[in-house]
Amino acid sequence: MPVRSDSRARMISAARRLFRERGYLGTAFSDVLAESGAPRGSVYFHFPGGKEELGVEVAIAHGADTIAQINRAAARASSAAELLAIFLGRTRDHLVTSGYREGCAAAPIVIEMAPGSTQLTEATRRGFQDAIGALAARLAEHGVPVDRAGSLAMTATAGLEGALILARATQSTGPFDALIADLSRLADGASAGTEH
Amino acid sequence: MPVRSDSRARMISAARRLFRERGYLGTAFSDVLAESGAPRGSVYFHFPGGKEELGVEVAIAHGADTIAQINRAAARASSAAELLAIFLGRTRDHLVTSGYREGCAAAPIVIEMAPGSTQLTEATRRGFQDAIGALAARLAEHGVPVDRAGSLAMTATAGLEGALILARATQSTGPFDALIADLSRLADGASAGTEH
Repeated sequence: MPVRSDSRARMISAARRLFRERGYLGTAFSDVLAESGAPRGSVYFHFPGGKEELGVEVAIAHGADTIAQINRAAARASSAAELLAIFLGRTRDHLVTSGYREGCAAAPIVIEMAPGSTQLTEATRRGFQDAIGALAARLAEHGVPVDRAGSLAMTATAGLEGALILARATQSTGPFDALIADLSRLADGASAGTEH
Repeated sequence: MPVRSDSRARMISAARRLFRERGYLGTAFSDVLAESGAPRGSVYFHFPGGKEELGVEVAIAHGADTIAQINRAAARASSAAELLAIFLGRTRDHLVTSGYREGCAAAPIVIEMAPGSTQLTEATRRGFQDAIGALAARLAEHGVPVDRAGSLAMTATAGLEGALILARATQSTGPFDALIADLSRLADGASAGTEH
């Protein structure tokens, strides 16, 4: 039985959830062990690079899952505006379901560790870059001009990160509602070629 | 000489800069003392409520300064789009000047402590609410319909928070450039009454 890899994957998954709730610095290896049920000896066995290695793995897992979420939304959407509404709506719903506790797992790594830690900064940079690239490609497939899709994907991603912060502070979905409506305006305008 | 209040104000100011760089959890009282030059005895004398009280004071100071920045931008702008470009451009320039080290001082409090700490969550909620309210009022004065100004101010604030994260991760002003262009489109459309 692949106990070793299971244990490592469970620790990364647990760390990702904990980062969402209390950040990178607020998450101790002991919390990750408690939540994942992994044995204490797992820490240096699975993460010889320590906390930084765990953070890099969380950033990689979070980035990949974000791309999967974008592609699930794209598969269901019939327009660029709808794609953004489904993608952001899912993030909003996750936050609400968690009692406004679980935000983004990558944002705290940036806020607490960038640009001081090169490894963590690079891992989050790659994660954001890939997610923005995937979102831009899906927006273009849904009618946004290619030369406009990249900047719209960047604005949508920035808006999502900020809406998570505002929604947690205000314990309200208002920031997501405003953002989704504004992104829909931008996506419709870009798709119709009516924006300046 | 008002040594007592000077020392307290210097500590809040130092903590605010440190929160920008490494977050709330990443900032120890010893760092605040070192950066502010306040004597060690200042901690419990000036902040009997400990770290949480310091965090609340940073949120209050940061919120007030954000409103001042909005009003400085509004005083120089001749349109809602220009107001947003000046306000966000100043935030971008501060980040670049700091070598992509100093983001928002309030965001880490939310990301690390909300909603667990009621005091800190409330302090950041008030800060964001007041800043969004001031921005909405200035946008309305610059031609955005009153019933549209609130949601545009919320989207702009979410975008700003997220752009700070993306810009730090990518060490690039690209996220701000995309955001400012998109917010200009929204502000112009809202002011002209041409958006749907």
